[in-house]
Amino acid sequence: WRSAPTRRASSAMEELLARVAVPLPSYETRDKSPPPPESTSLEFMNFYRGLEKEDKAGFLSRLSQDCGVDHRAVSDLAAKLLDTQRRDQATILQAEDRLRYSLTPRYKQLFSHVSRVPGGVKFLVDLRADLLEILATKASDSPHIRDLNSTLKSLLSEWFSVGLLRLERITWGSPCEILQKISQYEAVHPIRNWTDLKRRVGPYRRCFAFTHGAMPGEPLVVLHVALTEDIADNIQSIVREFATLDAEEDINKINSAIFYSISSTQAGLQGVELGNYLIKRVVRELQSEFPHMAQFSSLSPIPGFSSWLQGLLSQYRKEGRGSDLLSEQEWAEVEQAVGSNPGTPAADSLRKLVATGEWTRSEKLSLALEPVLMRLCAWYLYGEKRRGFALNPVANFHLQNGATMWRINWRADTSPRGVANSCGIMVNYRYFLNETSRNSALYLQSKAVAASEQVLGLVSQFQKNSKL
Amino acid sequence: WRSAPTRRASSAMEELLARVAVPLPSYETRDKSPPPPESTSLEFMNFYRGLEKEDKAGFLSRLSQDCGVDHRAVSDLAAKLLDTQRRDQATILQAEDRLRYSLTPRYKQLFSHVSRVPGGVKFLVDLRADLLEILATKASDSPHIRDLNSTLKSLLSEWFSVGLLRLERITWGSPCEILQKISQYEAVHPIRNWTDLKRRVGPYRRCFAFTHGAMPGEPLVVLHVALTEDIADNIQSIVREFATLDAEEDINKINSAIFYSISSTQAGLQGVELGNYLIKRVVRELQSEFPHMAQFSSLSPIPGFSSWLQGLLSQYRKEGRGSDLLSEQEWAEVEQAVGSNPGTPAADSLRKLVATGEWTRSEKLSLALEPVLMRLCAWYLYGEKRRGFALNPVANFHLQNGATMWRINWRADTSPRGVANSCGIMVNYRYFLNETSRNSALYLQSKAVAASEQVLGLVSQFQKNSKL
Amino acid sequence: WRSAPTRRASSAMEELLARVAVPLPSYETRDKSPPPPESTSLEFMNFYRGLEKEDKAGFLSRLSQDCGVDHRAVSDLAAKLLDTQRRDQATILQAEDRLRYSLTPRYKQLFSHVSRVPGGVKFLVDLRADLLEILATKASDSPHIRDLNSTLKSLLSEWFSVGLLRLERITWGSPCEILQKISQYEAVHPIRNWTDLKRRVGPYRRCFAFTHGAMPGEPLVVLHVALTEDIADNIQSIVREFATLDAEEDINKINSAIFYSISSTQAGLQGVELGNYLIKRVVRELQSEFPHMAQFSSLSPIPGFSSWLQGLLSQYRKEGRGSDLLSEQEWAEVEQAVGSNPGTPAADSLRKLVATGEWTRSEKLSLALEPVLMRLCAWYLYGEKRRGFALNPVANFHLQNGATMWRINWRADTSPRGVANSCGIMVNYRYFLNETSRNSALYLQSKAVAASEQVLGLVSQFQKNSKL
Amino acid sequence: WRSAPTRRASSAMEELLARVAVPLPSYETRDKSPPPPESTSLEFMNFYRGLEKEDKAGFLSRLSQDCGVDHRAVSDLAAKLLDTQRRDQATILQAEDRLRYSLTPRYKQLFSHVSRVPGGVKFLVDLRADLLEILATKASDSPHIRDLNSTLKSLLSEWFSVGLLRLERITWGSPCEILQKISQYEAVHPIRNWTDLKRRVGPYRRCFAFTHGAMPGEPLVVLHVALTEDIADNIQSIVREFATLDAEEDINKINSAIFYSISSTQAGLQGVELGNYLIKRVVRELQSEFPHMAQFSSLSPIPGFSSWLQGLLSQYRKEGRGSDLLSEQEWAEVEQAVGSNPGTPAADSLRKLVATGEWTRSEKLSLALEPVLMRLCAWYLYGEKRRGFALNPVANFHLQNGATMWRINWRADTSPRGVANSCGIMVNYRYFLNETSRNSALYLQSKAVAASEQVLGLVSQFQKNSKL
Repeated sequence: WRSAPTRRASSAMEELLARVAVPLPSYETRDKSPPPPESTSLEFMNFYRGLEKEDKAGFLSRLSQDCGVDHRAVSDLAAKLLDTQRRDQATILQAEDRLRYSLTPRYKQLFSHVSRVPGGVKFLVDLRADLLEILATKASDSPHIRDLNSTLKSLLSEWFSVGLLRLERITWGSPCEILQKISQYEAVHPIRNWTDLKRRVGPYRRCFAFTHGAMPGEPLVVLHVALTEDIADNIQSIVREFATLDAEEDINKINSAIFYSISSTQAGLQGVELGNYLIKRVVRELQSEFPHMAQFSSLSPIPGFSSWLQGLLSQYRKEGRGSDLLSEQEWAEVEQAVGSNPGTPAADSLRKLVATGEWTRSEKLSLALEPVLMRLCAWYLYGEKRRGFALNPVANFHLQNGATMWRINWRADTSPRGVANSCGIMVNYRYFLNETSRNSALYLQSKAVAASEQVLGLVSQFQKNSKL
Repeated sequence: WRSAPTRRASSAMEELLARVAVPLPSYETRDKSPPPPESTSLEFMNFYRGLEKEDKAGFLSRLSQDCGVDHRAVSDLAAKLLDTQRRDQATILQAEDRLRYSLTPRYKQLFSHVSRVPGGVKFLVDLRADLLEILATKASDSPHIRDLNSTLKSLLSEWFSVGLLRLERITWGSPCEILQKISQYEAVHPIRNWTDLKRRVGPYRRCFAFTHGAMPGEPLVVLHVALTEDIADNIQSIVREFATLDAEEDINKINSAIFYSISSTQAGLQGVELGNYLIKRVVRELQSEFPHMAQFSSLSPIPGFSSWLQGLLSQYRKEGRGSDLLSEQEWAEVEQAVGSNPGTPAADSLRKLVATGEWTRSEKLSLALEPVLMRLCAWYLYGEKRRGFALNPVANFHLQNGATMWRINWRADTSPRGVANSCGIMVNYRYFLNETSRNSALYLQSKAVAASEQVLGLVSQFQKNSKL
Repeated sequence: WRSAPTRRASSAMEELLARVAVPLPSYETRDKSPPPPESTSLEFMNFYRGLEKEDKAGFLSRLSQDCGVDHRAVSDLAAKLLDTQRRDQATILQAEDRLRYSLTPRYKQLFSHVSRVPGGVKFLVDLRADLLEILATKASDSPHIRDLNSTLKSLLSEWFSVGLLRLERITWGSPCEILQKISQYEAVHPIRNWTDLKRRVGPYRRCFAFTHGAMPGEPLVVLHVALTEDIADNIQSIVREFATLDAEEDINKINSAIFYSISSTQAGLQGVELGNYLIKRVVRELQSEFPHMAQFSSLSPIPGFSSWLQGLLSQYRKEGRGSDLLSEQEWAEVEQAVGSNPGTPAADSLRKLVATGEWTRSEKLSLALEPVLMRLCAWYLYGEKRRGFALNPVANFHLQNGATMWRINWRADTSPRGVANSCGIMVNYRYFLNETSRNSALYLQSKAVAASEQVLGLVSQFQKNSKL
Repeated sequence: WRSAPTRRASSAMEELLARVAVPLPSYETRDKSPPPPESTSLEFMNFYRGLEKEDKAGFLSRLSQDCGVDHRAVSDLAAKLLDTQRRDQATILQAEDRLRYSLTPRYKQLFSHVSRVPGGVKFLVDLRADLLEILATKASDSPHIRDLNSTLKSLLSEWFSVGLLRLERITWGSPCEILQKISQYEAVHPIRNWTDLKRRVGPYRRCFAFTHGAMPGEPLVVLHVALTEDIADNIQSIVREFATLDAEEDINKINSAIFYSISSTQAGLQGVELGNYLIKRVVRELQSEFPHMAQFSSLSPIPGFSSWLQGLLSQYRKEGRGSDLLSEQEWAEVEQAVGSNPGTPAADSLRKLVATGEWTRSEKLSLALEPVLMRLCAWYLYGEKRRGFALNPVANFHLQNGATMWRINWRADTSPRGVANSCGIMVNYRYFLNETSRNSALYLQSKAVAASEQVLGLVSQFQKNSKL
């Protein structure tokens, strides 16, 4: 990303913006003004799409700066509003409405027009993905561009309001176009082939997606569910178990719904609540299909645990503390199992073990590490915060939704990926339906995390051992 | 409609509103606040639906008054904004954003939540229909209720943005649920039975509707099109001609698309542009089906012409002028044909003829009246204005869309209804595709009406005769 | 219908048949012969369609006579077969196969080709309807035409084999094309308007049809079901009760499925079992939707009862017996209620009452006639036979399917039509699922009618009273 | 396959067949007999499915032998028919009909019942696949089993009559269930991944299949079509060219439809004409989409050419002839290019070259071999026969359909598979629509092959060179 377009590009931009991002009609004629011809919006879209990546940042900067609100008009109307404070209600209301109208950025009007042409909504979703990348990479970070982003986000929130979304159950009979995207977007537990894919939508499985009328054939957020007897503690049994591929579902074996993967597909819809609503809708759907179903839980990955742990160990090593995290006996066991060079600092050995995942090959080491990694993981999930909320994004998502941090599972994902990311550990966030509202409010407002005794027990073990 | 609810109802309302129309989160926490549980929105919807019609006005009054913006907060932030005018841009932008946020009425937030529950959007469309009726019947006319209406209209405009609408072609194979509604909503040329209905969706006909994901099975606006050789000048040949019911379309006989009926079905979407966009989409659709099609035109009714004419004649009679509208010879012909009592004022006879439609039974009278009624009608359509725009609502609609007032047709609707409403006259508004943008802008901005020579000729005849 | 075509038509027919109904390929080349071009079949279809009704009979006669089997070839091969009887199995089998092949009529081959072109199957269904009409009206009754009919029937039986039929549930969301046909074909309880129709496919109702790939959009046989608490004894409560039109179904109120109307739509499929299979499929469908549903029953009309009864009374009157049908007291009550002219024979009065339906207006008469008409009706259904099977066609249909004649219901159809056809009486044929197979076999093989105690009781009352 | 089941299995079979393959009803009661309960058919299906592969042959043998026709009854009725020859027509017709009825094997009746239960038709298709395998492997080859096969084939021909098939266009939006099968069944040019598959149904491609109501979701025969400017002479440009994957089709570049792959999916439908009809339907479909399309042609593989050629060379070598196939100069060029050991016989070198495909790596060799292989291939296609028809099955298929052997293409399939099977050569069978009927009849009746000048030229070159 580069935010300074060439001079020539620059003048073309100016010229275009002058044409397409016109001032709002006057307050009086706002309902009497015809929209611009569609060709204007299409021209804008084509111009933008034709820009090199590095020119887009410059263009969006300019759009945000030159086509926002008319600050002078706003301050004039603010002053007028203050003047009317002693007047009658009707006068005040009108002054407020004029002020509100004047606070509409020109680019908001432009985006509204764009949303009306075929493909316009998808265009804006993608444009916002660019904006977010620009903000993330600091290619441009003016307050204007942040305003632009927040205006666009709020427009998208209206258009992707949950009332306008359609819940679709994806089956083996769904269009290939959709299933291929499901397959491609599934980042949590990658889908490798037809059989894999068929399993995800086969018996004892459900796959749901929200779609939207303005982006046909495009699943916006996808939720994979396994229907099981008990709350699952292992992901391989879900994504690699094909015994039941042609089975008829036995309703008596279905007591639990396990949300084992949820993926958003549109970068540009970041911050627009979709996943949360999808889980709620799916719970309702499942309850109507299985009236007696009583257990709803995720089986979730813990991305970042390994890196966090390695960072922690590095730091300890630097600070020469190391010993705090494990009890003396634990250190001894680890060293014995590793047969490590006596000169090597223990924390270093451990860091290497975690980094390489080699410990999984030794039964002895696994046994020695299990209590250590479990309590560290519990702490990572429960105790590590960012601005007061859970640092781990998956934890943060489910806690916001009102779930309880319910069970941390050892050897839950023994794939290389699972070992590398989280030492093979996974966690269930459980949805107790009559508690989710309260949990959600408590978490968002007081940052309180609902957790089970197992989790709290592990956390307290961690706290006893470490002096963190 | 009655706007003063009983005391008991009143306290229940207060109690409910306090619970469901809560204040907005503080500016700082606006992205961190969980939405209320769905049950809150459902409670609001059920409460409102349970109200007697006369209590609804009172309830909406209260909602608009008690759950708008916090005027003090707004004026404080307006004052702050004025204080920041000399500060840096970031500070100004933030002050503006805070002010903008403070201008969001509480009921807007409530409506957003309602839109998220199943059936919520349809509920709000119906609520707006109530609001419009209240405003129309002056049951309540506070500035607050007008603000409520305009807030809701702008929300609906976002949700029913044309990018979110789906164009559906309605055929005999469409769900009965839809076709029954098409049949029921068709107000322009009522559909009487299965055969009538089948004709409207049969060969040489097209029927299109916009539908919306949030209101499945509900056509929002419906356009009926006839495919003809020449631009049709008679409606009976379209709606009552069944010879071709089982014919195969002969593409060589299809040169023109005649929009002979367009109906909006949702009172609550008044002011949300749908019909205009539907015509544009349909034109595009037809062009892709019939690449060589070159003539697009409406064949439109002229509701109000008879009443206007009768009003005019009454007034002339009162003012004793009468004679201005017709030439002496014309008066003579009418009198002769009527064989009217010499004592009866001529204007009176004419008014009665128009009111009863009896003139249609006499060939002589018809011949005598044709030039008179044609030029009067041309004037009615072209010259009669309301706030500068065409008084006739159908004319106003097509002129806004950029159509040209193209041809006024004698004996175009010989049904009793057609004779009663507009002396059997209908009009073609023609869409010259490369002129509609310009025409639309000219009409909306300068109130200029695009009209053909035929129309202008009739208008000038009228002007010569009358001293209007 | 007229079976002798004009000479000119006649020679055109001959010429056509010679061209399209060609001899079968020799036995040796039967798998190596290309089918004729489609145009041949289309020519045949167009020729036939173009014939006047009266020429069709002649044409079909000729087709049946001139394009059947080659009798000489058949008898030669029969002789050969007899010669091979002492030879080895392979030789016998081949002789049989050649004989079998020689017994294929040329028109069978023609029909096979016709079935392969678009619309061909429907054409043959309609052609068979013509054949049946010809046979019924004796327009032509040669053994050849009966053979033609039976060949065509057996072909249609293969093509409309139940494995090739599709069960479709018809709802308010089904294509209008289908629902209009449902409406039009419903002969049992005519559908009068949209609301009527909506009711038939609304809550507490099910409407199922078999469709076939070769006749898209055409329901072949339609079954209407009401879901009720108890087995219904009145049809108006089903077809005219609209209270529940927008209700949600309460599953706890659904214990019984009442088949209240079944209609075949294709005259040409007479004798091809469809209704029977449809009932079975629907039972299975309902059981899977309502696993606890335990009562399946028809509520059926009794067409022909009134006419039968009037015939009986006329005959009695002629024979001067009259008195046998009613007890003396019953005659007295009738006479008293009628206040009939003492001179009028009682049987005559009764016949008139039945013919006019006037008795329904007098409570007294109704009471007097109830026991009489009920036992007469029971006898009509149970005792009146044709070739050993139930004379009443509806009874015969359900008894063949294995149903039990379960309950005769007074005042069950109080519509004018119901009173005129069957004195307002209707009957439930009940399907006890684990008895239907046995019942069906018993009825078809030994002509035994399964009936409930109520029915048998009424029959025995009848027998006691009358000396029939 | 083994045809002698164990004793225990054997008695279970006998017992089952006695129960399910019951004698036909008597001629008189044939229309009055209820079908057996569905459970009987299901029992038969389950029994058969449960058999080991080796027991199936024994079971089918027994079925064919014990449940055929009653030979004595047949010969009695044949004798009776001979007795009636001098009687009236009605008597003869009836005797014929009785004889015909007696020639119906019991297993035919059984199959009819099976076809009526869900899944029954698919079961019979699979059963016939078993039968064909048994016949092919000579596991059992009694005349009875051949009769069984031909009876089943003729039943399947009725059920899969083209009028009952549905043409479906397969697109990227078709159900995954279908597309996966398309992918899996595509034997001609294997599909390797999503992109490959997407290409086959993307722009400038069409993929059509016949499906059948009794086997939902199962494409029966699949035709892949490429839409091109000129008649394609290379398959890689069709199946590996992805440049146009997201292109919009330019109708001006579409002059030809190339059928580049056709696959039947159901072994059990062998001999039931489907592919032929599919091509005809697709031609009609394409003509209606592209009215001006004038060129229809296959681009077909030549399976068996390499093996045939190697066989020929082996034989020549044995017979010491070798030199006949190539001119002296050609032999010299080959030897020079190969640099072959002077001792090695030339035919041997050539055979090795063909077997290994190594010649493709040398430009020189390729040039030398081109004329040789082209004329040999032309001969293989045009001149090599089996029972008078083309030996090559693909050629036989298209010639039966009435295509012309139009162009043999060098370097048309350069994949390893293409080189191994047919030295990289492919052939276009062209469909001249107004000649196909005549060509088909000529080929089937007189075995005449329609071929272009190019093909005939190559053939005559071959004949000049070889003394074959």
